[in-house]
Amino acid sequence: MRLPEVSPVDPGWLEAAWARHDQLTKPPRALAYLEELGVRLAAIRRSLRPELGAGAVVVCAADHGVAAEGVSAYPAEVTGQMVLNFLRGGAAVNQIAQAAGAEVYVLDVGVRAELPAHERLIAAKVRPGSGNLRLEPAMTRAQAEQALEAGMEAARRALREGATLLAAGDMGIGNTTAAAALTAAFLGLEAAAVTGPGTGVDEARYRHKVRVVGEGLERAARSLGDLARADPLAVLAELGGLEVAAAAGVFLAGAEAGVPLVTDGFPVTAGALAAVRLCPAVREYLFAGHRSAEPGHALQLRALGLRPVLELGLRLGEGTGAVLSFPVLRAAARVLAGMATFEEAGVGQTAAAERG
Amino acid sequence: MRLPEVSPVDPGWLEAAWARHDQLTKPPRALAYLEELGVRLAAIRRSLRPELGAGAVVVCAADHGVAAEGVSAYPAEVTGQMVLNFLRGGAAVNQIAQAAGAEVYVLDVGVRAELPAHERLIAAKVRPGSGNLRLEPAMTRAQAEQALEAGMEAARRALREGATLLAAGDMGIGNTTAAAALTAAFLGLEAAAVTGPGTGVDEARYRHKVRVVGEGLERAARSLGDLARADPLAVLAELGGLEVAAAAGVFLAGAEAGVPLVTDGFPVTAGALAAVRLCPAVREYLFAGHRSAEPGHALQLRALGLRPVLELGLRLGEGTGAVLSFPVLRAAARVLAGMATFEEAGVGQTAAAERG
Repeated sequence: MRLPEVSPVDPGWLEAAWARHDQLTKPPRALAYLEELGVRLAAIRRSLRPELGAGAVVVCAADHGVAAEGVSAYPAEVTGQMVLNFLRGGAAVNQIAQAAGAEVYVLDVGVRAELPAHERLIAAKVRPGSGNLRLEPAMTRAQAEQALEAGMEAARRALREGATLLAAGDMGIGNTTAAAALTAAFLGLEAAAVTGPGTGVDEARYRHKVRVVGEGLERAARSLGDLARADPLAVLAELGGLEVAAAAGVFLAGAEAGVPLVTDGFPVTAGALAAVRLCPAVREYLFAGHRSAEPGHALQLRALGLRPVLELGLRLGEGTGAVLSFPVLRAAARVLAGMATFEEAGVGQTAAAERG
Repeated sequence: MRLPEVSPVDPGWLEAAWARHDQLTKPPRALAYLEELGVRLAAIRRSLRPELGAGAVVVCAADHGVAAEGVSAYPAEVTGQMVLNFLRGGAAVNQIAQAAGAEVYVLDVGVRAELPAHERLIAAKVRPGSGNLRLEPAMTRAQAEQALEAGMEAARRALREGATLLAAGDMGIGNTTAAAALTAAFLGLEAAAVTGPGTGVDEARYRHKVRVVGEGLERAARSLGDLARADPLAVLAELGGLEVAAAAGVFLAGAEAGVPLVTDGFPVTAGALAAVRLCPAVREYLFAGHRSAEPGHALQLRALGLRPVLELGLRLGEGTGAVLSFPVLRAAARVLAGMATFEEAGVGQTAAAERG
């Protein structure tokens, strides 16, 4: 497959944006992390007055063969039921997206249930659920490419329809298991280091989940050797998550279009890791919407060098934490775009110059 | 003066809102702090489906006699210059308010400069700057009441004009010194424990600032005895901040109207402390928009029992951190107002019931 061409961000824009920030009517760096966000947004948008308008989240949904191992507190049918809930506007991500100014697109890349046609549903089922990663490849390499392309197409549709800020979300019972396996593989970590409670499992089921992840990793390593150095597309295919592959596609196409991209929780950030492995320049377009309560998420964010915007302890997925950060990112852009300089405002320039 | 009558929040609403939360289509408590915020908003709005619309911030501005002590990195003229900047829309709070859906009202309760009439300026100058708290009372008790009433009137105007969510902001060169003195007084702490760098002073100026705060506290204690037990209005008058008193008024009138209230940084939260001292039920209406980098701010929030929504390291004031949290509060309300229950959505009820 042809991967998108992503232009690296020009560091000249970062410097110029910092210089502009230091002329704005506030003590230098008084807006702290908001200034860093603004500077990165300026560089991505190639403008010292970046403005972000409408946002969008592509909620990538798929089932997981590994759910048969009893790794989740919820039965696999919930994936399809929740997709219908997204389409009717009854889920958390719908409500948060309304409050935060984002359109919700739902992408079926592998939900087991047949889903009815709906204007908000992008039907691109690659297969009805992945294989059980403990026992078999989650999907073929061709299917991984197909899921990635579905994510790219969905992102392009969101961008055509006006998105200036793009997030991926996830739905898939069992997907924190796949995300743990992928994260361990990409970062060269042990199963226990990256496996967490997901949406909530008890201690016995948690220990079982760690074993399942570990066995999946051993199985994949028998085919691919050192997973941290293997072809990232082959790793995606082995350990899967059709929706994780789709999320990677969202980030690849978004970065190609030069749009700021926002990660959500553990499964989506596994997709971001995959996208960065496939195309390292994607990293420069990524913002961490939040840090979830899932312990492996912090490891992913550290590996990506991202500091979360929000830390509210969310552990839901769907894109909720990503979307909730949109207003902060818009504010960061607006500060740089719309604030007056000391000179324009005629504000205490001597003091400002002394401190510059 | 007659203080507003603030109804305590009915704990029955909190319980009912938690019960509704646990029926919504998500694992119980998966939205973590967002759920807590939603439950408090439900109780304040007396509705299990709370909705927040337009927000407003009243930026309270005044000068400080104590600025003559050289406690700030900026000259006192900056207060009036920044008020003009607010009115022209060039300040950080204007930009962030646009991104976050808030109207900006500017309240002059004590700016030294004469300010031109402007539709966004509420002209209620009590006196042109407070007295130097190191040497004299910041204001008379009657002036403190007048500043408080000006804040209440400004809040009532914002509410009449449609605000459903209300914050106070601050502008006043020297005001972290007044805020430090008030915080030390209300919480019974030493000057050094609550004094910070403000908008940025060097080490020598910082040590000087601590001395100024300490001398102000000693002076006030000579008139009022134990400041932690003194009449809060008398403490406000002694250690001042006309804009801090006005911010207290914003919170008093907002709580009387039953609206969620959002604190900003160190000076505004000193106003919140004063409001709670005057009328303890105000506390139940308060949300901490953010935690600023000013070290005394964390002590204030702890005393108020508030966990900040955002932690971005901001140290600007103006209401920036308060306003930036509005979308998160709106999202917290919408989740409770608009999400489907497991039953409504027909989502995996057995699993939910097992976990309930």
